[in-house]
Amino acid sequence: MRGIDRGVTVQSRILCQLPIDERSVVAEAHEIAIYPSYYSYTECIGDWRSYTLYNNQGNERDFIFRSSTKSGSCTELGKHLKYIKTFIEENFDTTKLVQARAFSMRDAVVFPHRDFIEVNEAYIRLQIPLITHSQAYHAEEDVVFRMRIGEVWHLAATNVHSAANLGDRRRLNLCLDFENTDQPIQLLKKTGDTLPLPDIVVREEPSENHVRDIIAIGRIARKENIKDIIKLVLKEQYLMNITPAEIYDLLIKLSEQSRDMDIIRKVRTIRDYMTVERAVGKLLTAWDNWNTDVEPFEVA
Amino acid sequence: MRGIDRGVTVQSRILCQLPIDERSVVAEAHEIAIYPSYYSYTECIGDWRSYTLYNNQGNERDFIFRSSTKSGSCTELGKHLKYIKTFIEENFDTTKLVQARAFSMRDAVVFPHRDFIEVNEAYIRLQIPLITHSQAYHAEEDVVFRMRIGEVWHLAATNVHSAANLGDRRRLNLCLDFENTDQPIQLLKKTGDTLPLPDIVVREEPSENHVRDIIAIGRIARKENIKDIIKLVLKEQYLMNITPAEIYDLLIKLSEQSRDMDIIRKVRTIRDYMTVERAVGKLLTAWDNWNTDVEPFEVA
Repeated sequence: MRGIDRGVTVQSRILCQLPIDERSVVAEAHEIAIYPSYYSYTECIGDWRSYTLYNNQGNERDFIFRSSTKSGSCTELGKHLKYIKTFIEENFDTTKLVQARAFSMRDAVVFPHRDFIEVNEAYIRLQIPLITHSQAYHAEEDVVFRMRIGEVWHLAATNVHSAANLGDRRRLNLCLDFENTDQPIQLLKKTGDTLPLPDIVVREEPSENHVRDIIAIGRIARKENIKDIIKLVLKEQYLMNITPAEIYDLLIKLSEQSRDMDIIRKVRTIRDYMTVERAVGKLLTAWDNWNTDVEPFEVA
Repeated sequence: MRGIDRGVTVQSRILCQLPIDERSVVAEAHEIAIYPSYYSYTECIGDWRSYTLYNNQGNERDFIFRSSTKSGSCTELGKHLKYIKTFIEENFDTTKLVQARAFSMRDAVVFPHRDFIEVNEAYIRLQIPLITHSQAYHAEEDVVFRMRIGEVWHLAATNVHSAANLGDRRRLNLCLDFENTDQPIQLLKKTGDTLPLPDIVVREEPSENHVRDIIAIGRIARKENIKDIIKLVLKEQYLMNITPAEIYDLLIKLSEQSRDMDIIRKVRTIRDYMTVERAVGKLLTAWDNWNTDVEPFEVA
């Protein structure tokens, strides 16, 4: 929580900005909205849904990402969304595409985390906003930014990163995973002439009182509301100039105010899981079961 | 916030308790979960979904409740859920049934409110839990209670009432609307021998510090997080011995701490809408638009 540095930027890169036909995308977003989502994302609190459009099996119920060298095929939903399908085929090298998904997010925040897994698998992941608005944010390390519609982002997933939609209108991102390559730009069939600069968000500086008020919420924290309280605190990263490390510090201090050892342990385990010791497939943010999903942790 | 009275009860009545086959219901709940819900409930914060099984039109996309004397017919989803369909047909007088819905709720709280509308329309509404657990609650006036599986409840909807599921596991209630009758019991084809007493919840008494801590959360309230904060406060009714009137008082005092006139107005308007001046179909809990959905209100 320091002075605002207007020269900040992110390691994630905009490869190009592609034109998007808003009317077509909105029409297909309505189709997606009434379609079942078969995936739940434990790194998020709120309404976050993933819809598979393209994968190895061509089956949208199969959301496990499998290593494969052969390129994928369209799911039933992927075939149905003609505009998005054509958008992918006309702009990207689909012979190298292994998975395409639509990420729909509304009134939700993602825990700041590192993706070690993607690195080991050595895939290239691109994200392209199809629908967005001013309250939909991304964060990488200490910087908060907005992705504009049509921007093709190559995300630096090993950095601590997260996202949030503080509004009730849906944000829809296309997420494309390709076979690895040294030249991600070659995955694009065409690129624009000029590259936009990232839309970095300048945030308010939090006062000492504000920090104290956040920590004090811990006094009413209990198992039945800790998820709501954590969501409230995670939002602070987008509203105030607070880093992910400081967000986790706030959460830990807040949890200590609850005097509930289960809550204190849970928050510490989540912080370590998201930023340090990530284990594949471990369901750490199961909020209903306080016995089996928490690792023992000695609180100093 | 007074001493616990163990003699309290509710005006809503248990008509009987019917046997439910848990395995069949759980299997059909999985079918419902991947089915689109066409209705959104503005009196609720969190994940609340309604699925129409039976109505005048036999069309699940039509969720507007229309006055009618002719009995309804099954929707596509209603026909698909064979166990629930048989359960309704074997236990209730379907010649008087005008609407059947499944209410699915998870990590959600309903604003304490009165239903004037149902009374004018003069229908009989019964609710029957098909799946529930210990963190799924109902409230009527100053009393909090749990509905047990298979209990057929005739709810006193003109009293201030609400519901909450503080857990992440879904609660599934069947909601049946019948043509009006003086003898709701006659809507049942068979009834049990003994009537269970309502499962009234004895809640902890809140301390003065606790009340102060809740109000203090208002200091960090802003448009981007007020919905999360209201959800947190609404949960308090189920965790502590706090009445609906006191919940709204807490929300108003909390909103004043924000010093944001839009938030102060919004909270006052919501309280009046839920408990006093209910206008049909007015979308008061639209959290994204702060200009058009708030009635002007002079703050003293």
